[in-house]
Amino acid sequence: MSDGLDSAGRELLFSEARSVRSFSDKPVPDEVLAELWSLARWPPTAWNSQPLRVTYVRSPEGKARLLPLVDERNRDKTRQAPVTCVLAADLRFHDHLPELFPGKPDLREFLERADREGHARFNAALQIGYFVLAARAVGLSAGPMAGFDAGAVAKEFLDPQPLRALLLVNLGYPRPDAAPPRLPRLPAGHVVSWL
Amino acid sequence: MSDGLDSAGRELLFSEARSVRSFSDKPVPDEVLAELWSLARWPPTAWNSQPLRVTYVRSPEGKARLLPLVDERNRDKTRQAPVTCVLAADLRFHDHLPELFPGKPDLREFLERADREGHARFNAALQIGYFVLAARAVGLSAGPMAGFDAGAVAKEFLDPQPLRALLLVNLGYPRPDAAPPRLPRLPAGHVVSWL
Repeated sequence: MSDGLDSAGRELLFSEARSVRSFSDKPVPDEVLAELWSLARWPPTAWNSQPLRVTYVRSPEGKARLLPLVDERNRDKTRQAPVTCVLAADLRFHDHLPELFPGKPDLREFLERADREGHARFNAALQIGYFVLAARAVGLSAGPMAGFDAGAVAKEFLDPQPLRALLLVNLGYPRPDAAPPRLPRLPAGHVVSWL
Repeated sequence: MSDGLDSAGRELLFSEARSVRSFSDKPVPDEVLAELWSLARWPPTAWNSQPLRVTYVRSPEGKARLLPLVDERNRDKTRQAPVTCVLAADLRFHDHLPELFPGKPDLREFLERADREGHARFNAALQIGYFVLAARAVGLSAGPMAGFDAGAVAKEFLDPQPLRALLLVNLGYPRPDAAPPRLPRLPAGHVVSWL
């Protein structure tokens, strides 16, 4: 019966972490990015379906293909980040369910004929939540960006699979002045009800 | 420049945590539930919009209202869990943006006329990812459940606000035999691409 995470861990992942807009020049080793996924893969999804797909864009060539598809206000930070992740939902997640969720052998066939987009987007978004905190857990700072052309990013980076680009996340080590003043959070009394 | 979370923290939140189906009788103090939200509120959302709303159902009366709306296979564990959270997306999240995201004063007016459901669902799902890991960070185990009547739960628990029920999550302290055998995760080579 655990008392949970120690205060250093709570600060690192939650209360003192910041979304970062500018990164130091310190490179991000591939092993750290691999370690990030080795953590982020574990938390739960419905039917163990794991629809999230991750593309780590690090090379100058990859960045050059990505930059024109990003809103202008996001270009400088994307160019400057050591890594930009394209996070996407795989609409053919059900192809893997016979292995991932063997308890329901009919599920793949049922989903082949169903609208899977809502499930894929919702569960991939849960996984993006896990991914952002896993990035912090391996010592990185994250800067998520919703401002980009999702259709064009899918076409440029994700074809020919049926994937939907959901979010871009810059990763790296922050500069000391990397984060703007913190924005407020809603009062708990507005968010949380007790029954 | 941090090396990140220590190995005990990584195991607690990611690699050794399990989704739990049956809970011990140990009650969950209200302070622990409040602490959970005091962590989960921090990680980022687009426009700092924070659309997630949380209802902690603890009382026998609340449980009695919830149980008929939960799929039959989920009833025993819902009845037995010390707390069941109704996690929902507030489609009127934009009412708070003048305070939460003052840099874009026109945003509330723009969103009043826009379709906000996709934004609300996606960002609330990110927050549910944060919420599940925050539950583990305060020493709780979580058992998410997608099998319930979302429309009926919204009507019973969330009226009159325009809220969409997204997920139920049981919370408590696990029994030793609380988790079934672990299901496999996709190989990293299938999920992660490198550019």
